[in-house]
Amino acid sequence: MSGQKQWEKVENRSITLAKGFQAGGIAAGIKNEKKDIAVIYSEKEAVAAGVFTRNQVKAAPVYLCQEHLENPIQAVVINSGNANACTGEQGTKDARLMAEKTAEATGLKPGEVMVSSTGVIGVPMPMDKVIGGIVQAAAALGAGEEYDLAAAQAIMTTDTVTKQTAFRCSTNDGEFHLGGIAKGSGMICPNMATMLAFLTTDVKIERSLLQELFAEASDKSFNSITVDGDTSTNDTALILANGLAEGIEITRESKYLPVFKEMLIELCQELARKIVEDGEGITKVITLNIRGLTDEKSGRVMALSVLNSPLVKTAFYGEDANWGRILAALGYSGVTFDPDKVDIYIGPYQVAANGGSVPFSEEKMKDVLKKRDIPVLIDLKNGQDEVTAWGTDMSHEYISINADYRS
Amino acid sequence: MSGQKQWEKVENRSITLAKGFQAGGIAAGIKNEKKDIAVIYSEKEAVAAGVFTRNQVKAAPVYLCQEHLENPIQAVVINSGNANACTGEQGTKDARLMAEKTAEATGLKPGEVMVSSTGVIGVPMPMDKVIGGIVQAAAALGAGEEYDLAAAQAIMTTDTVTKQTAFRCSTNDGEFHLGGIAKGSGMICPNMATMLAFLTTDVKIERSLLQELFAEASDKSFNSITVDGDTSTNDTALILANGLAEGIEITRESKYLPVFKEMLIELCQELARKIVEDGEGITKVITLNIRGLTDEKSGRVMALSVLNSPLVKTAFYGEDANWGRILAALGYSGVTFDPDKVDIYIGPYQVAANGGSVPFSEEKMKDVLKKRDIPVLIDLKNGQDEVTAWGTDMSHEYISINADYRS
Repeated sequence: MSGQKQWEKVENRSITLAKGFQAGGIAAGIKNEKKDIAVIYSEKEAVAAGVFTRNQVKAAPVYLCQEHLENPIQAVVINSGNANACTGEQGTKDARLMAEKTAEATGLKPGEVMVSSTGVIGVPMPMDKVIGGIVQAAAALGAGEEYDLAAAQAIMTTDTVTKQTAFRCSTNDGEFHLGGIAKGSGMICPNMATMLAFLTTDVKIERSLLQELFAEASDKSFNSITVDGDTSTNDTALILANGLAEGIEITRESKYLPVFKEMLIELCQELARKIVEDGEGITKVITLNIRGLTDEKSGRVMALSVLNSPLVKTAFYGEDANWGRILAALGYSGVTFDPDKVDIYIGPYQVAANGGSVPFSEEKMKDVLKKRDIPVLIDLKNGQDEVTAWGTDMSHEYISINADYRS
Repeated sequence: MSGQKQWEKVENRSITLAKGFQAGGIAAGIKNEKKDIAVIYSEKEAVAAGVFTRNQVKAAPVYLCQEHLENPIQAVVINSGNANACTGEQGTKDARLMAEKTAEATGLKPGEVMVSSTGVIGVPMPMDKVIGGIVQAAAALGAGEEYDLAAAQAIMTTDTVTKQTAFRCSTNDGEFHLGGIAKGSGMICPNMATMLAFLTTDVKIERSLLQELFAEASDKSFNSITVDGDTSTNDTALILANGLAEGIEITRESKYLPVFKEMLIELCQELARKIVEDGEGITKVITLNIRGLTDEKSGRVMALSVLNSPLVKTAFYGEDANWGRILAALGYSGVTFDPDKVDIYIGPYQVAANGGSVPFSEEKMKDVLKKRDIPVLIDLKNGQDEVTAWGTDMSHEYISINADYRS
């Protein structure tokens, strides 16, 4: 492929850009006045792929999604305000009831519905409000800008901005689309911590291939971001593919596989970055690139060890080029490497060479550190692989938000 | 043994209470005006045991201690203000030079000296000041309250109070003693994060048995505390036993083994708690007891996962009984357990039963949460073992201190 992209971004759109998808988002009273229930609907059976929290304590809807994952799927129901986590037997029943009521309202079978929840933990679901809300959201289904926005709003908790994006790809065989919405501000971390993402596409694709591509895209995006390192009980990222884009089938041999894969990774990364940028009480976004790796997996472990270190995070908040804390965080990541080969750069300036200090201008460094976006590069000089991960600083504001919010 | 302790605490004393030990602490100008070099000296060769940081990035003095550990040891030199970490070849030379100069000043061989450093990372040691300070500290050696205090002060960095304690045990065969000093306030975490502890005892004991007992005591104390979860490059805990308490030999068969072991654990726990209580910018000390474990090791992993969670820490700062965050932190600890069996208590009140919520009085809970010391009990109902670990909340003050201090 040439350097030029084969697809374009479609502004202000997300999950109903792909053919045959509709969405509805309404306020059912679970949260105060704000929208809190979304339904996503596909006019035709879709295949679904998903990645879920690796926390052993999983909310009831996560189990339900894992059960339904290989079914033909036609709807997703999502509520914010209550996570339906640590809610025991009743929680399982409530998640099932949400699938049933959504199926009833859209003319489907319960097994064709996915369920997702986010919000406070350990409190039983207000099912009267939820059921009323499902009926209302199903009645509000439609496609277009306002429907995308309503769904994006309905899945928010402490988020301050909606997170959505969509791409259109035009080919000689016709157009296809990919769009997504996401939520999550605090408690974002490796392994899908309190974040939800829902993607739709109109390509035709087999479930196993979609699952493989989506898992890789998630590793490079949702699993490469962190705000506070806590892994939540509810994290879910789902993609539905309904095959309504005529003439576009993605197979392992398809000429469109590379472009679809690229779009999927870029869309997931864009949503992931939006989540980091909206991190609770942050003042800096750190883009950490680790090079010279023998494998990506251990690189991601190291990157998240650095980005989760409270000492690294507070140093960036304090605009201090404290590379010793970065090296120390690599050192306790559990990954074996040679500390005496490590080079570290903050912005364009090298601050450590071969594990030791390098003189740099504190004056010029100040200009780098006072910006909101700070690139950090670590070179382990040990191989050809590299990873990129995104994190934040830790501020006074973070403490305030999390001391006051029972989630 | 009966419930009554066979030993007594000796107020305001530490490392020179045991027979034949001397200490000196002076200001060499590495830190501004404050004491920054300590020398501990034994009149007779001692056996040494030690536990060290598990961070792969280890400061030069840590390697030196590991090299000398099986030698007969007669002195320890410690400086604060500069960690001699990430300092490359020069750092190794400087650590060796510290051992040489201490040996010179006290009439020993360099191999009989242990070296320890704490402070800023990545900056070369100011060796002129350090060498002058070693001579000065060696000239100031003595035993008694003021010498204990001077050494305890000289190892401090961001600590706000000195940390020392000592026990005397009187037996029919004579007396023996155990004492210790420690430092560390922020960056305290599993696996010996930025903390130093130096213990002395006058019992006679073989090195291998002392190492075994000290490793166990360290696991139950220094490795069971956390302030911010960052593991430092310099953590070191050392104990010297010089055998000068006549008639008291600790062997595997000795009748004094149980009491010595108990004293060692209690002394290490007392120092560890002092470190937590002096944690940077904390307002709460959490004592977390996990019961119903099949083994202690996995219990400690779970305990530190809970105590390192920024969301748990900020909840305690906000005086919020947010047990869902506690359960979620257990869930991502990596240890397998059954979430549906977990009971959680905060103070005397149960907040979760079998992984689900239990009604409790928010009013009474307020009284528990507004105190500085908060006991938390988790029962996994899965075995007979239990562990205790100590942590803190995370406050605005923590952010301020760590944003401003380059360590």
